[in-house]
Amino acid sequence: WLARLLARLHPADAADLLEQLSGDDFAACVDLLGGQLPTSIIIELRDEYREEAVEVLPDDAVAAVLGELDSDDVTTILEDLEETRRERILDELAPEDRASLEQGFAYEEETAGRLMQREYFAAPEFWTVGHTIDHAREHADDLPAEFFEVYVIDPAHKLKGQVPLATLLRTPRDINLSDIMEEVESDIRVEMDQEEAAYQFQKYSLASAPVTDDNGRLIGMLTVDDVVDVIQEENTEDLLALSGVNAADGSDTVLDSVKSRAPWLAVNLVTAFIASAIIAIFEGVLDQVVQLAILMPVVAALGGNAGSQGLAVAVRAIAEREMEGDAGRRAILRETLTGLANGVIFAIGVGIIAFAWFRSPELSLTISVAMFATFIWAGFSGIVVPLTLKRAGADPAVASSVFVLTLTDIMAFFSFLGLATLILV
Amino acid sequence: WLARLLARLHPADAADLLEQLSGDDFAACVDLLGGQLPTSIIIELRDEYREEAVEVLPDDAVAAVLGELDSDDVTTILEDLEETRRERILDELAPEDRASLEQGFAYEEETAGRLMQREYFAAPEFWTVGHTIDHAREHADDLPAEFFEVYVIDPAHKLKGQVPLATLLRTPRDINLSDIMEEVESDIRVEMDQEEAAYQFQKYSLASAPVTDDNGRLIGMLTVDDVVDVIQEENTEDLLALSGVNAADGSDTVLDSVKSRAPWLAVNLVTAFIASAIIAIFEGVLDQVVQLAILMPVVAALGGNAGSQGLAVAVRAIAEREMEGDAGRRAILRETLTGLANGVIFAIGVGIIAFAWFRSPELSLTISVAMFATFIWAGFSGIVVPLTLKRAGADPAVASSVFVLTLTDIMAFFSFLGLATLILV
Ligand SMILES: [Mg+2]
Ligand SMILES: [Mg+2]
Ligand SMILES: [Mg+2]
Ligand SMILES: [Mg+2]
Ligand SMILES: [Mg+2]
Ligand SMILES: [Mg+2]
Ligand SMILES: [Mg+2]
Ligand SMILES: [Mg+2]
Ligand SMILES: [Mg+2]
Ligand SMILES: [Mg+2]
Ligand SMILES: [Mg+2]
Ligand SMILES: [Mg+2]
Ligand SMILES: [Mg+2]
Repeated sequence: WLARLLARLHPADAADLLEQLSGDDFAACVDLLGGQLPTSIIIELRDEYREEAVEVLPDDAVAAVLGELDSDDVTTILEDLEETRRERILDELAPEDRASLEQGFAYEEETAGRLMQREYFAAPEFWTVGHTIDHAREHADDLPAEFFEVYVIDPAHKLKGQVPLATLLRTPRDINLSDIMEEVESDIRVEMDQEEAAYQFQKYSLASAPVTDDNGRLIGMLTVDDVVDVIQEENTEDLLALSGVNAADGSDTVLDSVKSRAPWLAVNLVTAFIASAIIAIFEGVLDQVVQLAILMPVVAALGGNAGSQGLAVAVRAIAEREMEGDAGRRAILRETLTGLANGVIFAIGVGIIAFAWFRSPELSLTISVAMFATFIWAGFSGIVVPLTLKRAGADPAVASSVFVLTLTDIMAFFSFLGLATLILV
Repeated sequence: WLARLLARLHPADAADLLEQLSGDDFAACVDLLGGQLPTSIIIELRDEYREEAVEVLPDDAVAAVLGELDSDDVTTILEDLEETRRERILDELAPEDRASLEQGFAYEEETAGRLMQREYFAAPEFWTVGHTIDHAREHADDLPAEFFEVYVIDPAHKLKGQVPLATLLRTPRDINLSDIMEEVESDIRVEMDQEEAAYQFQKYSLASAPVTDDNGRLIGMLTVDDVVDVIQEENTEDLLALSGVNAADGSDTVLDSVKSRAPWLAVNLVTAFIASAIIAIFEGVLDQVVQLAILMPVVAALGGNAGSQGLAVAVRAIAEREMEGDAGRRAILRETLTGLANGVIFAIGVGIIAFAWFRSPELSLTISVAMFATFIWAGFSGIVVPLTLKRAGADPAVASSVFVLTLTDIMAFFSFLGLATLILV
């Protein structure tokens, strides 16, 4: 019954349905299907669920599944397996498939080489449109299921250009490919980081792109659906990193969550005590004027918020490569001035509220000036911290938040309590 | 000289070069080119720069530019113009182009209708592969520059299926389209939100998709490059919203930045004073035990951090539709338990550090219990706030942060100072 239901749905929809189940129910479900989950559904499952499905399925079922997939999807599945089981399954495959798959694993994770598929359609320059179409008809089974371009190569398998299928379609039979081929704008090498490849897809509006080795020889093809997954991954990474989370998945257990969050909380524990140490310097004034303890968190909260805002804008701009060249310096100026402008507005705002509450002009002046100083500092750190991390070759999204919030906290407590010592005592 | 340099580069690269210039230099540059920026470069510019370029260019130059573009790109450019200028430019276009463009504006912003192009290749079911290819060759100029599928329609222009170009290519001439066409998995209507359309592209791994009206008639086509832009936009929206920024662009002025950030800072000003009011309740104990003022921010900082972590995970999961059905309830449980687990770890940690510093078992006990309570509360609010906003039909990323941080601050101050009143006084 379940098998029939799943067969009726589109694989992506069937996968969604299975993903609604909790871990245990999902395993029971795969078991129930007699260890036979259709290939098309397996590849649509989210990482965590796919890993589990492949774990539950017997070796020969996995091997059968692999035979039907493009090489990039096979790599994705094999990646998840333990070394010994992977070997066992590779043994069940045809020797030529096996060899090319093992080559795939030679490329590092998160490179174009890992992401690409080895199936593509290439033709020599001197073929005519007619010959190319005839060839495709005769060798229909050898072609990849989906492709959008014919890659034009020379006898040494060097990439010379590409012919989009739409162009091929509208060109008369007797024209040579060399006359209609266009230059390949992208330049994607096997060892290139997948993020850089994804950037080229966005920049040149690509649906697919050839992947070459260091000698310019064609060895694979990237398709946009896999690139879209990379784009999502990278975006997720940044969003989570900005909030101090290392990784997150729909199927995470409590233990997974603790592991991915406790490290940054531990860092924050240290930085929070540094801020406390700053406050401790001013124990005397705090003891005399209890209102300082009441207002102190306002300066820290707003300053931290202003810093986070600037940081989010900076991290996004860096990810979209809007911070190259002079743009970085212009952004530092803009962020500092934004801090100054918001600083004026909120210094006045906080001063008025504090006065209405405590009726002390000195206290209002203290919090206003501290707020102003903290906002300028927040604007400056919100942009300088990620830019510095980037220049140092680190990911600007990771750790930025902790740095910026610590810097603004220190400034908030130091300026507020320091000024209070000068003005109020 | 400049014109020649730009012509040598790929349009996307030329656009990047121009985007490195500041606003004024950019306008001067467009002026220098005698008001003639190549169409291909204009469409590659980022929104802000494109708007400015179009503002500087004379009407007839803009009209000439529009003639060369797909209808979706024309819409993008016309959208930016003022009503009167748009009318003037539309007047210079051929009447039939004009009519179809005005139709495009009938669709609301951020719908599939706005995003789609009106150019596509459609063929009736009874055509053979050979006939289709012959037709494409004869009417080469009427076809869109790029497309990946032939859409199969009935005499009423209803969409019946699609034939990927790769399938067309490998099929013998005498086969009917109806025999090789596949079902269209996506179901994208003109009035559908672009976010929903983008979701279908990701789910079904599409390179392009037909857009239909309410009667199932084909009226346009979406291509993946434009969808990738939508995905980026939506991701950016979430990342910025989580940090309390309404919008951000590389070309923002200080005024733009202030406008997009001040509103959330103003909300934060109010919530920060609410937290202060909580502290004020415990003025008495703060006056007696100054160490409380020193340690108080530690509880708030770590609790806020734990809440933000859970929030980021929740917002991502909601955006990727991992929170449908039962998953929401499972996530609430997981997040609360994660809060509990991290609460145990950091309650102990903070207790030890506080004891090492102040040598007061009562103070350590107070901060440990407060930390534990705040962490559980942070885990719970981090997931419940965005889920509630989503259920209420609001964007879970917007405003969540302010809510969660206020809730954790209140809990931190209330539990820490409240317990201190019980234990220390
Ligand atoms: Mg899915
Ligand atoms: Mg992969
Ligand atoms: Mg684009
Ligand atoms: Mg693939
Ligand atoms: Mg990465
Ligand atoms: Mg990244
Ligand atoms: Mg660009
Ligand atoms: Mg558009
Ligand atoms: Mg939207
Ligand atoms: Mg996919
Ligand atoms: Mg387009
Ligand atoms: Mg939007
Ligand atoms: Mg959204």
